[in-house]
Amino acid sequence: MPIGVVLVEPRYPENIGAVARACANFGAERLVVVNPQNLDWTKIRAMATKGGQEFVDKMRICSSLEEALSSFNWAVASTARLGTHRKVYKTLREIAPDIAAKAKNNRVALVFGNEKWGLSNEELFLCNDAFTIPTAGYSSLNVAQAVVLTLYEVFCAASNVKVEKPKLATYEEQQQMYDRIKELCEVIGYVPHDNVPLWMSSIRRFLSKMELTSREARMVQGFCRKMIDALRRRDGV
Amino acid sequence: MPIGVVLVEPRYPENIGAVARACANFGAERLVVVNPQNLDWTKIRAMATKGGQEFVDKMRICSSLEEALSSFNWAVASTARLGTHRKVYKTLREIAPDIAAKAKNNRVALVFGNEKWGLSNEELFLCNDAFTIPTAGYSSLNVAQAVVLTLYEVFCAASNVKVEKPKLATYEEQQQMYDRIKELCEVIGYVPHDNVPLWMSSIRRFLSKMELTSREARMVQGFCRKMIDALRRRDGV
Repeated sequence: MPIGVVLVEPRYPENIGAVARACANFGAERLVVVNPQNLDWTKIRAMATKGGQEFVDKMRICSSLEEALSSFNWAVASTARLGTHRKVYKTLREIAPDIAAKAKNNRVALVFGNEKWGLSNEELFLCNDAFTIPTAGYSSLNVAQAVVLTLYEVFCAASNVKVEKPKLATYEEQQQMYDRIKELCEVIGYVPHDNVPLWMSSIRRFLSKMELTSREARMVQGFCRKMIDALRRRDGV
Repeated sequence: MPIGVVLVEPRYPENIGAVARACANFGAERLVVVNPQNLDWTKIRAMATKGGQEFVDKMRICSSLEEALSSFNWAVASTARLGTHRKVYKTLREIAPDIAAKAKNNRVALVFGNEKWGLSNEELFLCNDAFTIPTAGYSSLNVAQAVVLTLYEVFCAASNVKVEKPKLATYEEQQQMYDRIKELCEVIGYVPHDNVPLWMSSIRRFLSKMELTSREARMVQGFCRKMIDALRRRDGV
């Protein structure tokens, strides 16, 4: 399955290794880490065991979540914290069939936060969708175990996939579109000053519902550029 | 849930700790270990994190799987190896609703083998039922991750449980019954000499289908005793 696991600022090399093994167990495509805190390769490889070595070999190391997501078409965040702003309404089991269906012909990133804090609001808002894993009271799941549960659910759901989902815009194409939307919002004075990331996340969630293709994302982007040009000409800039 | 996780001869203290944490995450009742190879409490407690400490505190340590299972009503084994003798026909997802339903009013043991070899045939045969976790090719799951997947599936299935299952015989009551059945089989010359555990496992799987209550197990046991007595009287022993 064209599924990538993205670990944001993982603290322990053992967890990176355990995730590599899980990728092998459940047929993920690749492993990406953003700003790993400790890359002790001996510990990573020990936990990856035999099956996970190839994921360690080709592991991509990025310096930002944006960079990590650039070639993916869809990014889904895992989170245990459910603040009002975070708008997480789906459980893992509810979202798994959608992930499996999209992964038939799209590169899907499953994004997991740091062992201590999970994902920040800003990181969560960079993703198209989000889910939570229900637990019995003690909600603090180990990150490697959260990855195992997620890949397992998607793997189970994938065997039931019937219809293909459309090929979606890549994350980079989406990002260019959102940058342009943000620019337009600024030009027309439609960005609240107190929390820009939250505002942009609302737009991202809203447009994510439309599951935009590359062509559609370019269309929205082009529309915004024309609007900006027209407004600037009007203002004589 | 009255669910116990039984680890048979775990090699690494980190795995015991990770399992304790998983017990807290998904509402299991207790943790039992059989002949642990390494009880480094510092490592166990570090991996158990805050939520898992109580499971470490009250962890039961046994010297045999029989002893570990004695107070349970139903034991289900997890296995990755699927030899012809092992007769494992259910996936975790298929068996989870049954485990959740039984756990409404029975103590259910989930039995996991050693990191290197898993469960032996003899250990597998001590259990009432068995399941396997489907994977994508590389089937070697870390034992703590197998426990997490299992508890998660049972936890999800438990929220859908409608009807209560009957209160079953305890493992000890079952064992007494099987001991008597074995004795009877020996008296009447009905035990193949080449593989007694396999023979007894066939009987166990056969009778497990009936999901015997305490009363029924005692009845079968009493019937066997009467048969043995009658046969011995006839033979003038």
